[in-house]
Amino acid sequence: MQTKFQVAIAQLDVQAGRPDLNTQKIISEIKKARSKGVDVILFSEMVVSGYLLGDEWENESFIRDLMEYNEDIRKESKDIAVIWGNVCADFDKKGEDGRIRKYNAAHVAQNGQWVKNGVFEGHTFKTLMPKYREFDDERHFYSMAKLAAEKGERLENLLKPFPININGNIVNVGASMCEDMWCDDYSESPIHHLVKNGADVIVNLSSSPWTWRKNDKRHRVVKSLLEKDPIPFLYCNNAGIQNNGKTVFLFDGNSTVYYPDGTLMAVTTDYQEETLNITLGEKTTPVLTPTGLTEKQDVVELFNGLCFGIHHFFLSLPRQIAVIGLSGGIDSALVAYLLTRALEPENVYAVNMPSKFNSDLTKNAASVLAKNLGLNYSICPIQDSVDLTLAELKRLKFVRENSSHIETDLEVTSAITENIQARDRSSRILAVIAACLGGVFVNNGNKTETALGYCTLYGDVDGALAPIADIYKNEVYQLARYINELEGREIIPSSILNVVPSAELSADQDVTKGKGDPILYPYHDKLIRSFVEFRSDPERILKLYQDGTLEAELKLESGLVKKYFPTTQEFISDLEHKWKLFKANIFKRIQAPPIIAVSRRAFGFDLREAQNGVYFTRGYQALKEKLLTTL
Amino acid sequence: MQTKFQVAIAQLDVQAGRPDLNTQKIISEIKKARSKGVDVILFSEMVVSGYLLGDEWENESFIRDLMEYNEDIRKESKDIAVIWGNVCADFDKKGEDGRIRKYNAAHVAQNGQWVKNGVFEGHTFKTLMPKYREFDDERHFYSMAKLAAEKGERLENLLKPFPININGNIVNVGASMCEDMWCDDYSESPIHHLVKNGADVIVNLSSSPWTWRKNDKRHRVVKSLLEKDPIPFLYCNNAGIQNNGKTVFLFDGNSTVYYPDGTLMAVTTDYQEETLNITLGEKTTPVLTPTGLTEKQDVVELFNGLCFGIHHFFLSLPRQIAVIGLSGGIDSALVAYLLTRALEPENVYAVNMPSKFNSDLTKNAASVLAKNLGLNYSICPIQDSVDLTLAELKRLKFVRENSSHIETDLEVTSAITENIQARDRSSRILAVIAACLGGVFVNNGNKTETALGYCTLYGDVDGALAPIADIYKNEVYQLARYINELEGREIIPSSILNVVPSAELSADQDVTKGKGDPILYPYHDKLIRSFVEFRSDPERILKLYQDGTLEAELKLESGLVKKYFPTTQEFISDLEHKWKLFKANIFKRIQAPPIIAVSRRAFGFDLREAQNGVYFTRGYQALKEKLLTTL
Repeated sequence: MQTKFQVAIAQLDVQAGRPDLNTQKIISEIKKARSKGVDVILFSEMVVSGYLLGDEWENESFIRDLMEYNEDIRKESKDIAVIWGNVCADFDKKGEDGRIRKYNAAHVAQNGQWVKNGVFEGHTFKTLMPKYREFDDERHFYSMAKLAAEKGERLENLLKPFPININGNIVNVGASMCEDMWCDDYSESPIHHLVKNGADVIVNLSSSPWTWRKNDKRHRVVKSLLEKDPIPFLYCNNAGIQNNGKTVFLFDGNSTVYYPDGTLMAVTTDYQEETLNITLGEKTTPVLTPTGLTEKQDVVELFNGLCFGIHHFFLSLPRQIAVIGLSGGIDSALVAYLLTRALEPENVYAVNMPSKFNSDLTKNAASVLAKNLGLNYSICPIQDSVDLTLAELKRLKFVRENSSHIETDLEVTSAITENIQARDRSSRILAVIAACLGGVFVNNGNKTETALGYCTLYGDVDGALAPIADIYKNEVYQLARYINELEGREIIPSSILNVVPSAELSADQDVTKGKGDPILYPYHDKLIRSFVEFRSDPERILKLYQDGTLEAELKLESGLVKKYFPTTQEFISDLEHKWKLFKANIFKRIQAPPIIAVSRRAFGFDLREAQNGVYFTRGYQALKEKLLTTL
Repeated sequence: MQTKFQVAIAQLDVQAGRPDLNTQKIISEIKKARSKGVDVILFSEMVVSGYLLGDEWENESFIRDLMEYNEDIRKESKDIAVIWGNVCADFDKKGEDGRIRKYNAAHVAQNGQWVKNGVFEGHTFKTLMPKYREFDDERHFYSMAKLAAEKGERLENLLKPFPININGNIVNVGASMCEDMWCDDYSESPIHHLVKNGADVIVNLSSSPWTWRKNDKRHRVVKSLLEKDPIPFLYCNNAGIQNNGKTVFLFDGNSTVYYPDGTLMAVTTDYQEETLNITLGEKTTPVLTPTGLTEKQDVVELFNGLCFGIHHFFLSLPRQIAVIGLSGGIDSALVAYLLTRALEPENVYAVNMPSKFNSDLTKNAASVLAKNLGLNYSICPIQDSVDLTLAELKRLKFVRENSSHIETDLEVTSAITENIQARDRSSRILAVIAACLGGVFVNNGNKTETALGYCTLYGDVDGALAPIADIYKNEVYQLARYINELEGREIIPSSILNVVPSAELSADQDVTKGKGDPILYPYHDKLIRSFVEFRSDPERILKLYQDGTLEAELKLESGLVKKYFPTTQEFISDLEHKWKLFKANIFKRIQAPPIIAVSRRAFGFDLREAQNGVYFTRGYQALKEKLLTTL
């Protein structure tokens, strides 16, 4: 590629399901770029509609609507080439679901005309269809691979670059979509075919959700692709959030230009709506070093993601008002801080709702935190209401008038009284306060509790959004400490950082006596991570235990397992107990709020859990028997 | 096929996620069949593990475990051929998700040996992968089609029948899986390839969830397949329920033997665990007439499905105890009846929870119904608790200590007071009663309300199961009338059938003054059905309205639209209002309980809804403008 030309990479904050607003932005960016003399402008995958739309792809009027926007954008391509992602429908053919056939497509227009690549006119299709985690591409879209099979044609014959005219010279642009570059687990590499077919430059239009520590991986993947086929590589991703029902995904953009050797030429600012202007065909720009994350930057990345996600989620609501229950514990302290950061303190309303089991220690801590954060604060004791409920239950009698007259009284255990308090707080108090203020209340649960079901349905499971339910307890502390560092003071009081984690729902959870949650966080955090993110199970864990590699594999502190579980029997009892809790509490997650996804596997629409009860494999049972007999 | 041989079609009640229990049943059925001289026994798709397991397919120990059960079953195949569905893993290859490659497979063994078909040894794979509605086959399994592409082989060369030895004669059995027979929307027909490759008989192992009126369709599909390739066709489906997280699917079995011309030879009893014994190679059995459903049988089918689903759902819980709020309205009356039918009246606890807005009419009706049903009944008024909450809210003051001291009071509107009542009933009373009894409480919402969000989150949205949330209001009445007919008396009092549907949460919903829900059920039921099940939208509806075909298309009573909406403006206002409600209330469905699916599209894991707000297409807006200007 000898020709020098200007490229703009437009990283838009795409609003899912709003092609009207997105197209306005696209056209405005095209105009700006043209006025700057840009030759080619890129937009991300599904930039017109958004990507994670659930089954709205089945709405035929909506598809026709999206196709009309393609025409609008083509018409705007005077004196510039535009490449953008949007659905491409073939109304004469069916998808495998019997509906109108749809492709996840890159569209290419220049000077008001569709650009032809010898196979298609103005578009090409995504070849590789992600269908793991939150992705449902196979559900909605027909792939280039299936089209090749249907035509009885070799895939490489369909993957051709588009000739873009730059002042009379042709630059061949190979357009790929997101997963097309993540081809390790597929039998073909679309990028490789594009290069073999004469591409001078590869563009990859993505709509790739951010997860913690993922960008480093992308840099490695591109480097490895380019080792085989050295070529300038332009990655254009969108910013924003997309809420797939049970899970809220963050898009950091992080659009990147790579030199043919995989080093970085330029990268956008994370999460920002930003257009990157670069010149290709000359090598004058310095090489950037990809951010090798230090431990500190690691937390910052997580912190920034959460703040962005919360901020954006609230923008999707009618009013940006948040209500939160402030217990004086670490989880609600973190969420309260994040809310004030994402929304401004005057839009955050915190309530402390003590019953007789809440200590002065945590009540005071909540009050200090409220002052530190400058939010609206109130105290609403719940003991009167709890007592009323208990009294009513005492009076309540079920009568069965059948052949005889049978009466049933109710027995209220301590565990039941605990749950009454939790439900009273959320469903009676927080819900109505949020309604009065025209806002919503948020959930404070972390991932460890959510996994083990250490929470009450219609109680602390409630909320419009679960901002930290994809974060383990140790990460909650890590973030809290980072926040105090960032603020340069104990904005989260040390009493909160130091008190034993406890639900304070009974005398058995008295923090002043050091009593707290029945969870050994340093170990159980990692165990849950292994179940959820690494898809392991008791058989795998027990094998590691047997091999003596558990601590290394789970990245536990050395000696921790023996400290917590002096005997194999104790280790096994705990393992089975936690696996049972993990599986038996799926019913709570089914009714839980959307979670902001930050990890490599979040509950909800990412990790899809059927409600099937608890099962231990035969391999597990044999190993258990062996280990216990050996003793 | 000249050889006469005995086939057993074993329709098991498969328990999802419990290969241990399912394999016990399989082996017991094999033993019974062998003792009866059966030559070939068939089991359904994924009979070892169950089918709708969510992402448990990613658990490697579990997959290895399932593979071991295959060996157990093979060993049991002495003097009999066994064909069954289970996963088949290739540990040396990867799926497109980077995990162990898994196929949805039919396994074939005889006399303790795997049967070879010239391509594979003892197994063949599902070719067509459903990925619409609740199906996620592409997510978890590698298809025969992809394998053919990977091998550079034609699909037909991989689809070979298995030669089964019947007393020295060979019968070629073509094994297919579920979707393989529903091939209309795919480019290849696996059944056709099997027949061309010499199959004497086709077996189809299915795990096909029941939906209302689906079996008739299957008979037509098979008939059309066999017109092209006349051959005996054996369809083996499982019974039971499978709970995919947000949605509970019913499996009626309805395993069927078809003659080569598509007429019916034999069919199992719906929902029963039953083994059908037939002789092939002779034509002595009479032809059955497929059940052409009369209107009455139509309701019966729905009724039976619901009773079965509720019964089975409760079997999956630790205790079979149900708690229900009984308002004296039609929805709770129907659910209460279904519960007593599915569980026995002594296991059902009903509570009437009046506030000051509940009429004597409905309170009495609830009490009469309780007596009629013979269940345990109690009355728990909620006004004291509601008043306490209102008083607390009056006192509650938010204070913001920042630079200045800012106070905020709360304003409680009438709508807010309505929701306080709903939440008080479910989250305060029903939840704790269920806990005291060791049971769960159920949700009473119908599909119309669920779609429009005419319900309160943490109020009547609550429950462990939503038994009728896939049924429209008119179907609720249809079922209630059928129940009275079935019982031969007004077990559901006529006062309940005749009272205006109302939430009774304010003076504006006073049933004694004929005031009720703001929903025109005869029209809105059908409008919602069009949105949900036929995936239409306002543009489509308005086009039908313009064309004068709306009543015919939606199957509305003639003249209804004009009656409800005298002007186009009124029609459009209502249409937009309902579309907005439908979309804006997704947040409630995200946190709603699992729904028993009976329709062609149920909320939850069947209809996957992203939370994207409300959008009207440009086509809609243009049409609206035209229609309003024309006037």
